[in-house]
Amino acid sequence: MTSLKKSVYEIIEEAAPGHRASQIFDIFLIALITLNVVALIVGTVEGIHLISPRAFHLFEVTSVGIFTVEYALRVWTCTEDAKYAHPVKGRLRYMVSPLALIDLMAVLPVYLVFFVNLRGLDLRFLRLVRLLARIVRLSRYFSSLRTLGRVLHTKRGELTAVVSVLFLLLVMTSSLMFFAENGAQPEEFASIPKAMWWSIITLTTVGYGDVFPVTAAGRLLAGVIAIVGIGLFALPAGILGSGFMEALQEEARPPVRCPHCGEVIERM
Amino acid sequence: MTSLKKSVYEIIEEAAPGHRASQIFDIFLIALITLNVVALIVGTVEGIHLISPRAFHLFEVTSVGIFTVEYALRVWTCTEDAKYAHPVKGRLRYMVSPLALIDLMAVLPVYLVFFVNLRGLDLRFLRLVRLLARIVRLSRYFSSLRTLGRVLHTKRGELTAVVSVLFLLLVMTSSLMFFAENGAQPEEFASIPKAMWWSIITLTTVGYGDVFPVTAAGRLLAGVIAIVGIGLFALPAGILGSGFMEALQEEARPPVRCPHCGEVIERM
Amino acid sequence: MTSLKKSVYEIIEEAAPGHRASQIFDIFLIALITLNVVALIVGTVEGIHLISPRAFHLFEVTSVGIFTVEYALRVWTCTEDAKYAHPVKGRLRYMVSPLALIDLMAVLPVYLVFFVNLRGLDLRFLRLVRLLARIVRLSRYFSSLRTLGRVLHTKRGELTAVVSVLFLLLVMTSSLMFFAENGAQPEEFASIPKAMWWSIITLTTVGYGDVFPVTAAGRLLAGVIAIVGIGLFALPAGILGSGFMEALQEEARPPVRCPHCGEVIERM
Amino acid sequence: MTSLKKSVYEIIEEAAPGHRASQIFDIFLIALITLNVVALIVGTVEGIHLISPRAFHLFEVTSVGIFTVEYALRVWTCTEDAKYAHPVKGRLRYMVSPLALIDLMAVLPVYLVFFVNLRGLDLRFLRLVRLLARIVRLSRYFSSLRTLGRVLHTKRGELTAVVSVLFLLLVMTSSLMFFAENGAQPEEFASIPKAMWWSIITLTTVGYGDVFPVTAAGRLLAGVIAIVGIGLFALPAGILGSGFMEALQEEARPPVRCPHCGEVIERM
Repeated sequence: MTSLKKSVYEIIEEAAPGHRASQIFDIFLIALITLNVVALIVGTVEGIHLISPRAFHLFEVTSVGIFTVEYALRVWTCTEDAKYAHPVKGRLRYMVSPLALIDLMAVLPVYLVFFVNLRGLDLRFLRLVRLLARIVRLSRYFSSLRTLGRVLHTKRGELTAVVSVLFLLLVMTSSLMFFAENGAQPEEFASIPKAMWWSIITLTTVGYGDVFPVTAAGRLLAGVIAIVGIGLFALPAGILGSGFMEALQEEARPPVRCPHCGEVIERM
Repeated sequence: MTSLKKSVYEIIEEAAPGHRASQIFDIFLIALITLNVVALIVGTVEGIHLISPRAFHLFEVTSVGIFTVEYALRVWTCTEDAKYAHPVKGRLRYMVSPLALIDLMAVLPVYLVFFVNLRGLDLRFLRLVRLLARIVRLSRYFSSLRTLGRVLHTKRGELTAVVSVLFLLLVMTSSLMFFAENGAQPEEFASIPKAMWWSIITLTTVGYGDVFPVTAAGRLLAGVIAIVGIGLFALPAGILGSGFMEALQEEARPPVRCPHCGEVIERM
Repeated sequence: MTSLKKSVYEIIEEAAPGHRASQIFDIFLIALITLNVVALIVGTVEGIHLISPRAFHLFEVTSVGIFTVEYALRVWTCTEDAKYAHPVKGRLRYMVSPLALIDLMAVLPVYLVFFVNLRGLDLRFLRLVRLLARIVRLSRYFSSLRTLGRVLHTKRGELTAVVSVLFLLLVMTSSLMFFAENGAQPEEFASIPKAMWWSIITLTTVGYGDVFPVTAAGRLLAGVIAIVGIGLFALPAGILGSGFMEALQEEARPPVRCPHCGEVIERM
Repeated sequence: MTSLKKSVYEIIEEAAPGHRASQIFDIFLIALITLNVVALIVGTVEGIHLISPRAFHLFEVTSVGIFTVEYALRVWTCTEDAKYAHPVKGRLRYMVSPLALIDLMAVLPVYLVFFVNLRGLDLRFLRLVRLLARIVRLSRYFSSLRTLGRVLHTKRGELTAVVSVLFLLLVMTSSLMFFAENGAQPEEFASIPKAMWWSIITLTTVGYGDVFPVTAAGRLLAGVIAIVGIGLFALPAGILGSGFMEALQEEARPPVRCPHCGEVIERM
């Protein structure tokens, strides 16, 4: 029995180099999740969904079945991992790990719909949870996303400093514009939080054009804010961008290996 | 009496390392100012304000009371600082220092409303002054904002050069567009200052879409201006951004200390 | 006969230094293709086309004639190139090479219109193929475009990593915005693919203003997405830009030559 | 007589260090031109112009008088410069130099209005020439603008390469969008030149929102174009920006001087 559990564990864990069955399982799972995400996205287009609602439903039910079996197998075999060795406590701790929770959230919403009586809003929220959980599952296989996560961690000091400055700037510009434009446009600049919407859309240079100053004072203020502020709102972008490029270049560099045993000594 | 004044001075001054009472006072003040700014911002949303106008009023009155006491204590104890040692002249000089003026502007508007008969515009202006003064007070506790201030000082040469070029570019493109579009759009391009609004919103790439050229000549001109000009309008952003990043990295570097006495020799 | 073929080959091939006839042929061809592209572009302006539809037609027919002769000459003389030496197989292989296919696509659509009975859509598609083929032909003479192509090749690793992150971000933000805004704007956010249009236009900071969030939740979400996401969407731009600048500077540097034979040893 | 001419020449030429009269003349002229530009700009605002049309007229007439005298003095004294030493030929050559032509264009339009019978269009064109000439005159005193001019010269190779790529990209994306959207929006995408307006406004990320794709094919295409293209359209900005920063830093560096005679050996 133990040997079966170990074999299953080796197959459903991330592919070890050379382990064919594990590689095939991984490719199958990536393909299934990708198709699933595509189906959930394309399924929101009414014209496409109406071609064959049954096909969409069937694919969804089958996928959820496979994901459920996979989840059960993961919980069953997780005791092979030294971290979750205890048959009960280990399994419970595995079940509350972020990875397992994401796996659960990718299937649970479907079962909730069967057993619980839900209103429209909850149904839509569950669909969102299901979709996001599957996108996150898919993103686990993107190494570049892991790189980005590492960059966010490395640059957290700079990012915090920049975001705090942006926040103060946002509060200040929104207050100024609220007082400048509230008289002329009581709808669009009804409150400071509403003026913040203007500030963000202007300072990121998106500029939808749904809100803009119309008074001379407001335009003068907006001009100065735009010229000064876009420099600061471009900072998080710059930090993330340059950090990501550095990290990609680091990864492309061959790791330093011990000349005797060949093991990696330094990787970054 | 002097020892009490000195104790109060030590508490309300910026927290020295290890001085618990001073640290608690600082945290309390930061929390109070933050809540105050949030209340003033959220209070502009009619729906939220109407839930309990009395709660907003009570919180405001209490805050102003505390800020007034704090201001009085600061004026009373400022003579402990060698710079403001003289009991009368020193206190007066302290009261016209930027920090003290901001503190005053955070409370004075409320008293003015009580004693002076004001019209609508003045009332709104006083509310703005009060809010801005408190945001500035809050920003005093953000070290990253001090860093940004230092960057503005270090890069003032480059920024002046760039801003003067931007100003000439703005005047020139606005003049050209005014002559190109005034005939077809006498409202939107009514004057050169109005055309400047178009120039700023286009060259910062915000592009609200409230004003844009419609004639063939105007569009050709606008296309050339957009391609050439956005490079120049992105310069202040680039200078501020790169300067800010450099300053943050400098600060993360440990300062050079004398190997004998341990004092900081060089910090930047 | 062979000597004539060789002479023609030398003329129509890219100009060797000092070969006058070949240089004149090249200049003539560049001028003709440029005029052709200009005529096809300007010909879509109704007012200009109606001045003299016959002139446009005549110029088109003449150009196609010249391009056809040129194409025939190229196929005839390609056997001079060692790669396509075989009279039949070599010529066939030349004819399916990308360069020759582009040349063919620049003339074939005109002949198809004569011999095949076509409906409106096909006609317009053929006009597009013809125009694009000629632009591509023209771009062959732009060395800076070759540089850009080389940059795309060198940076393909970084670009793939970045584009995969962008894709996940796009899917995730579109899903979130669809669920946030679909209730309030069932037209604009009718499906997740429609929400993707919003995502792309916002994250590239274009911001047309045809779709934007109107609910408080949607605006909060959009604000966070805008500040975080524009940094990532600016990455492909940054990679292409910096790579292009590096490549241009490399090219400006004189190549390393062997001190004995004068041949180029290293070029990049 | 010669000594008077030489004195006048020294005063109206750019201020030599220590020459007080010349410095005062320069400051007076800068102030006059600045006021002039401000008056011409502000004079286009109807409300302001109507306050006192006579004051505007009087200031204009006085200024033109002073500029005319100044121009006459410059032509009279230019023979002091070795380049224009010949009394007739030298003066003629001075008069066709760019600087002198700009000076002439700043006054000539006013005289033309007096002596020639002009229609509305010509009048407005002359006003534009006068305003632009005075802005250019003013910009002569901005050293940062000279720096920018030098950058344009130094980077002309890169700029030409980039602009040629942008041009091809513009032609290609406009052609594609014309064929994708012309059917659905025959007004906005009436011709390829009209589609170019869309391309420029999208690729520079201005995004007014006056033209945007509405078909699924057009939106897909626009999304790809936006992500790929904005990187390339940001290049001229990047080249100008980085070049300008480099030049400003170069200028801030002290020049290398000969240790013997103290003359500047190298400045860049």
